[in-house]
Amino acid sequence: MKSHVLLIDCEDRKGLVNQITGVLFKHLVNVESNDEFVDHSTNRFFMRTEFSGNFDSGQIYDDMKNVLPEEANIMLSGKRKKNIVVLATKEHHCIGDILIRHMFNDINANILAVISNHDTLKSLSENLGVAYHYVSHENLSREEHEKKVLQVVEQYNPDYIVLAKYMRILTSAFTAKFPNKIINIHHSFLPAFIGANPYRQAFERGVKIIGATAHFVNENLDEGPIIFQDVINISHTMDADKMSKAGKDVEKTVLSKAMDLVFDDRVMVNRNKTIIFN
Amino acid sequence: MKSHVLLIDCEDRKGLVNQITGVLFKHLVNVESNDEFVDHSTNRFFMRTEFSGNFDSGQIYDDMKNVLPEEANIMLSGKRKKNIVVLATKEHHCIGDILIRHMFNDINANILAVISNHDTLKSLSENLGVAYHYVSHENLSREEHEKKVLQVVEQYNPDYIVLAKYMRILTSAFTAKFPNKIINIHHSFLPAFIGANPYRQAFERGVKIIGATAHFVNENLDEGPIIFQDVINISHTMDADKMSKAGKDVEKTVLSKAMDLVFDDRVMVNRNKTIIFN
Amino acid sequence: MKSHVLLIDCEDRKGLVNQITGVLFKHLVNVESNDEFVDHSTNRFFMRTEFSGNFDSGQIYDDMKNVLPEEANIMLSGKRKKNIVVLATKEHHCIGDILIRHMFNDINANILAVISNHDTLKSLSENLGVAYHYVSHENLSREEHEKKVLQVVEQYNPDYIVLAKYMRILTSAFTAKFPNKIINIHHSFLPAFIGANPYRQAFERGVKIIGATAHFVNENLDEGPIIFQDVINISHTMDADKMSKAGKDVEKTVLSKAMDLVFDDRVMVNRNKTIIFN
Amino acid sequence: MKSHVLLIDCEDRKGLVNQITGVLFKHLVNVESNDEFVDHSTNRFFMRTEFSGNFDSGQIYDDMKNVLPEEANIMLSGKRKKNIVVLATKEHHCIGDILIRHMFNDINANILAVISNHDTLKSLSENLGVAYHYVSHENLSREEHEKKVLQVVEQYNPDYIVLAKYMRILTSAFTAKFPNKIINIHHSFLPAFIGANPYRQAFERGVKIIGATAHFVNENLDEGPIIFQDVINISHTMDADKMSKAGKDVEKTVLSKAMDLVFDDRVMVNRNKTIIFN
Repeated sequence: MKSHVLLIDCEDRKGLVNQITGVLFKHLVNVESNDEFVDHSTNRFFMRTEFSGNFDSGQIYDDMKNVLPEEANIMLSGKRKKNIVVLATKEHHCIGDILIRHMFNDINANILAVISNHDTLKSLSENLGVAYHYVSHENLSREEHEKKVLQVVEQYNPDYIVLAKYMRILTSAFTAKFPNKIINIHHSFLPAFIGANPYRQAFERGVKIIGATAHFVNENLDEGPIIFQDVINISHTMDADKMSKAGKDVEKTVLSKAMDLVFDDRVMVNRNKTIIFN
Repeated sequence: MKSHVLLIDCEDRKGLVNQITGVLFKHLVNVESNDEFVDHSTNRFFMRTEFSGNFDSGQIYDDMKNVLPEEANIMLSGKRKKNIVVLATKEHHCIGDILIRHMFNDINANILAVISNHDTLKSLSENLGVAYHYVSHENLSREEHEKKVLQVVEQYNPDYIVLAKYMRILTSAFTAKFPNKIINIHHSFLPAFIGANPYRQAFERGVKIIGATAHFVNENLDEGPIIFQDVINISHTMDADKMSKAGKDVEKTVLSKAMDLVFDDRVMVNRNKTIIFN
Repeated sequence: MKSHVLLIDCEDRKGLVNQITGVLFKHLVNVESNDEFVDHSTNRFFMRTEFSGNFDSGQIYDDMKNVLPEEANIMLSGKRKKNIVVLATKEHHCIGDILIRHMFNDINANILAVISNHDTLKSLSENLGVAYHYVSHENLSREEHEKKVLQVVEQYNPDYIVLAKYMRILTSAFTAKFPNKIINIHHSFLPAFIGANPYRQAFERGVKIIGATAHFVNENLDEGPIIFQDVINISHTMDADKMSKAGKDVEKTVLSKAMDLVFDDRVMVNRNKTIIFN
Repeated sequence: MKSHVLLIDCEDRKGLVNQITGVLFKHLVNVESNDEFVDHSTNRFFMRTEFSGNFDSGQIYDDMKNVLPEEANIMLSGKRKKNIVVLATKEHHCIGDILIRHMFNDINANILAVISNHDTLKSLSENLGVAYHYVSHENLSREEHEKKVLQVVEQYNPDYIVLAKYMRILTSAFTAKFPNKIINIHHSFLPAFIGANPYRQAFERGVKIIGATAHFVNENLDEGPIIFQDVINISHTMDADKMSKAGKDVEKTVLSKAMDLVFDDRVMVNRNKTIIFN
């Protein structure tokens, strides 16, 4: 018995759910779960269905094509682990968490490689069974370095790229190659404290909460569709360093939660926002 | 144009969503939102649909009856304010919050009356425009008092009864008359600290979080289906009185949130649990 | 027996706590609680002490003066309810919450009056026992209207002014008269979504959390010292209106918490930040 | 320059803070932070002070002895990493998190060894640089097995023992040897769901929040002083397995936070509760 996920988005109209479920019923699949959402501000319909059974997925796809509007986006695929490459710099907390999960099969992904502009995380990564590529940025322009990183990424042909505290800015030449396929963790509750040193900014402003944001990366830094956010309370006794230490836990938890959502095909992108079918 | 809510629960089987949406499509309604859930542990299907349009709701109901299994529970009704009666004792925070919302049309209910075993809240209630029935319990047995309360309740024929810190225990004779129609707020994160003085219990145990639970009332005290819960952090500096004061905010927020969910027909009862279509 | 609060801030140096507690010991007071903080980034010392007993507070004050550096700020006063004036516009949730607390003695303040540029909240306020001043802004310049508001405020000589969703911008002429004496509630987790329509901004950005911020008001809009913040989770199903409705609960809770902290003399201002001795 | 932590608890009386700070001032130390708490229900005084400078700690200790009541508990020690032994069973999330932190010097402890009744975590532990003792419980009584574990523990003479999801019950013979020195993580917001399978219990009860509790272990299972707790929201869509997966993140975060607090000497035990000077 197979298990598949179906994602559909198209212009909303009457009868869509009936037509879609009609196709599924015709093929006698078992619908495990079904979620729909209509964005009334744009009149757009979104649906996620998990189903199992013995079926011909190509035939289901063709039948869906026939009942849906031509412009519909249809993704139909077996439930499977995603292939990912992780980019990091020096900080260990996010990458460590991901590697431990990976080692114990607690993440819906195969980590093909870790790439970093430092060698700090090399022994961690290799000791936990994942290839490590140290691509130094020294004496290279941003473009030159990024090109070398890209060469390594492309040899793995990943489904997703995860920026686990990768502290270098990607050019739009890079991000344009992987639309809604790059997941970043930003150490603030965006849109607060965009840019560098958010904990320093938070300290200067005297906020009482800090947070973290996982988002897809697009050409505008820190402005891609937000996948997940969480916060923690802080007090006047915490300077920027203490905030940074306290924030690490929420960073890794937020990134991990976002990865779970994306790799289980629970995240659909609606212009600059996400729809989460959780 | 009318706006209706449809709630269905029945044994799960293939094609249910297709059959249900087929009826809706036949009547050409606009489906505003659609949520489904299958409890795989009991093989039971639950669905909530909001739709609008010009339709004959009796005809839709009959058509649903025809396509669904005989044992299915079908609720189909226009979106409307619920009629409620609120029971309270002396504490003002929950009832005050409810009355303010009611006064400004910020709650999906008509408060027909407040009933209390004290007169503490009389001027508050009347000044905010709601009839107040003071039914003293003095010199009465539990059963005698409850009977008098019941007489007042029944003259209003409410859709729901809200216990806004009503500090008397209802007998099963009373609760059996209103299955899943009585909403209570309990001042702990149940099932911790069942029974009297939960803040005192929390203080004695030295917990670091306290909370509140809104639940339907059944014959077993504090054991009805949970609708909503929330918590707040506390510290060693708080004694039971300070906890009680701090807890009031979460109590009123939790009760208010539960009332919104129930009155918008977003809560379905699945044995001793709830399904929340939010 | 009297109960007093002592607040001290001054440059840090060795022996300060010993000297301060030496004065208290000399007068044989009972120290109920004691909190200190040193801001190492500015080398500034902050202390809050609650004590009770039979003592001459003038003598204690003079003795403190003698042991502390000349530039020290010393506030020594009996524990007492603060006198406040509340400014509001049309929204009822914050003002309603405050008035209910006031009616039942559940707030450490006497509300002397409510002032609004609309008459929407008049019957609520008066029915709950608080004078209401309707000062319309129609056909008046900002400065003219503010002057009329100021006249009403000044006749009450309040300790604090609370902006309970007062939707008009105060000029720096007004705010300069009440430094660290005006408490505002802003409907976002500042510094995100500064300015108008934060829920609309939050919807457009697609954030997964929204929040509220209580802060002192200074000449720079939305930039005064933050007293308290809290957030709630939201989802893609919520448009700006639903966010606004959901946000009201956190707004009123955050404002209420901030008022408790300020009126209990638990908030000290450290440049553009607060120190909270909770 | 040295940095020390001073912890004092004794019966409360007037002048204590003055006398304690008098000793510190006499030795001309720099007080970095100072926290006090009086439990008025038991009239007991608690204090934590961090100070630095050039001083004779033995002399400070003797001077403290002289000014404090005879029954006072005084702990004065240099700030230092604690030596710990970690007990685990099969689950990797807590131990993995701890080992990663340890590898990168991000925890205030030296992990001397991991002990487990299974060999599941052996390669993880050894690859991250920590000795692993596999002490199987097969064919052994509880007492026999525990005795073998104890032998391994005692050869390391740890300051603290951390139970990172160690799924075996310790006898009071064991726990009595390490009063307030064993930290456990329990996978519920205690006192809810005491005992086995808390996530199963939570699922059966239909709660809307689940949580985790870090506590010291005493002779009564799950009843030791609570150090830290946190919760997450759940929904009807989550069965016990999904709750268990979702709960792992909060388990490891709660344990990690509790370890930070304990190892930084920020936790004092007050009968069956803790005082947290954070």
